[in-house]
Amino acid sequence: MSDLSAIPNRRQRVQSAETGMAVLKGLARLGGRASLTALAVHVDESPAKVHRYLASLMEEGLVAQDAGSQHYHLGAEAIQIGLAAMRQADPIRVAEPSLIRLRESLEVTCFVAVMGNKGPTIVRFEEPGLPVTVNVRVGSVMSMLWSATGRVFLGLLDGSRVRALAQEEWATASADMRAMLDATDPIGQVCEELRQHQCATVRDTYQRGISAVAAPVYDHAGHVCAVLTALGATGGFDPSVDGVIATAVRREAAAASALLGGERFVVVSAP
Amino acid sequence: MSDLSAIPNRRQRVQSAETGMAVLKGLARLGGRASLTALAVHVDESPAKVHRYLASLMEEGLVAQDAGSQHYHLGAEAIQIGLAAMRQADPIRVAEPSLIRLRESLEVTCFVAVMGNKGPTIVRFEEPGLPVTVNVRVGSVMSMLWSATGRVFLGLLDGSRVRALAQEEWATASADMRAMLDATDPIGQVCEELRQHQCATVRDTYQRGISAVAAPVYDHAGHVCAVLTALGATGGFDPSVDGVIATAVRREAAAASALLGGERFVVVSAP
Repeated sequence: MSDLSAIPNRRQRVQSAETGMAVLKGLARLGGRASLTALAVHVDESPAKVHRYLASLMEEGLVAQDAGSQHYHLGAEAIQIGLAAMRQADPIRVAEPSLIRLRESLEVTCFVAVMGNKGPTIVRFEEPGLPVTVNVRVGSVMSMLWSATGRVFLGLLDGSRVRALAQEEWATASADMRAMLDATDPIGQVCEELRQHQCATVRDTYQRGISAVAAPVYDHAGHVCAVLTALGATGGFDPSVDGVIATAVRREAAAASALLGGERFVVVSAP
Repeated sequence: MSDLSAIPNRRQRVQSAETGMAVLKGLARLGGRASLTALAVHVDESPAKVHRYLASLMEEGLVAQDAGSQHYHLGAEAIQIGLAAMRQADPIRVAEPSLIRLRESLEVTCFVAVMGNKGPTIVRFEEPGLPVTVNVRVGSVMSMLWSATGRVFLGLLDGSRVRALAQEEWATASADMRAMLDATDPIGQVCEELRQHQCATVRDTYQRGISAVAAPVYDHAGHVCAVLTALGATGGFDPSVDGVIATAVRREAAAASALLGGERFVVVSAP
């Protein structure tokens, strides 16, 4: 998210502001409350120095001290800053660099989709120099059952609405389409795939000749707020769950999740 | 929450750390994202100075910059700090000073209750020098329908569980007890009282000779995580919704909510 090239060099920054932030982050890393001693050890500074920074953090309401234990803990202002950070955290914005990296490193078509009122909807789309011909673009609503994107939402989002959309698709699907899925429990099959691999892969199911791999982006509350998908021409594109592409898509989805505060919800799938 | 007396004087603090925190808080106040110009105006510093602090905040991952708009926004570290602050925010701890203030300013018995598995449960209890005799203490589970405390949870907590507890009470209550409530819709009556006044008041319903006033404490997500209650001997204690005690209890519950990041959920009741 941060444009590193835009960061001025050390001379143009404020060292003691950075130390203050390091103390604040240290207190958060320690679970939001700690003794002066434990915090000083964690940030590798002298207790006397850390105490002065804590005094400033208390003055600004970011830290408070228990009268009893004398331990320090994050204060109300820290909650306010976090709430503001979460409210403005945008899965589409944070996933954009991931799309660029996927396109450039793997030369694949890739996109970000969110759950719209009609279903999984593409909101950002990136293509390599020589794109494959696909029938989706920004604004396209994907299938819940036959697209990799839809399967991630179906497999990981709670709520009856997602299942209702999938059941509707199944009810109105042709015999050929149904034949691509588990006839007895198509939705359960999809959910099981997600639980196992934390990504969904399809080959020729949503569009003939196209394979795709999709992985979830989690927000700070652990909700799947977006799905990152890479696709390519079947044959030249490896959709296997442990392939190079699936690994990269999962890695980028995890990176986007981290920027939204959701990294602890990312399940590292078994190799 | 912060023990101000423990804050060293300005000489013992770090001015530029405080300025850095002020910039961080300013960005949060502006919704978590802003231009350098807007932020400099908001914190009343020169753009050049604010830019240096933003560079340090970016270095620490608390702030990021959009490559396109060049606007600054709160970064992933700000979310992490907020999440840690919320996880350790303890309604019981933050409500304690409120209990002390209520006891000392009004000389009332007061307590904090949370929703336990058996119902509203008292977790902190404060008594004045000359306490009234009450049949509750720390650990007591209160009635959902006949205690002011229970009524706040019943009126403001979602979920079938609270309603089930109340229905169970109603089903097993004596005719005398039922006579104290609206016979047609006792639960609806309680919910309506809460909507109207953002507090619950009882007179002689839970214990004969005792009146009480209770108000909700909201967490950062808007859930009622605790209830603040003051009680006293009927006659010497004014339980009216716009009385001195109800006003003080609502004010203290709002103060505790603010420390938990929930002040925006506090409804200021009509006078």
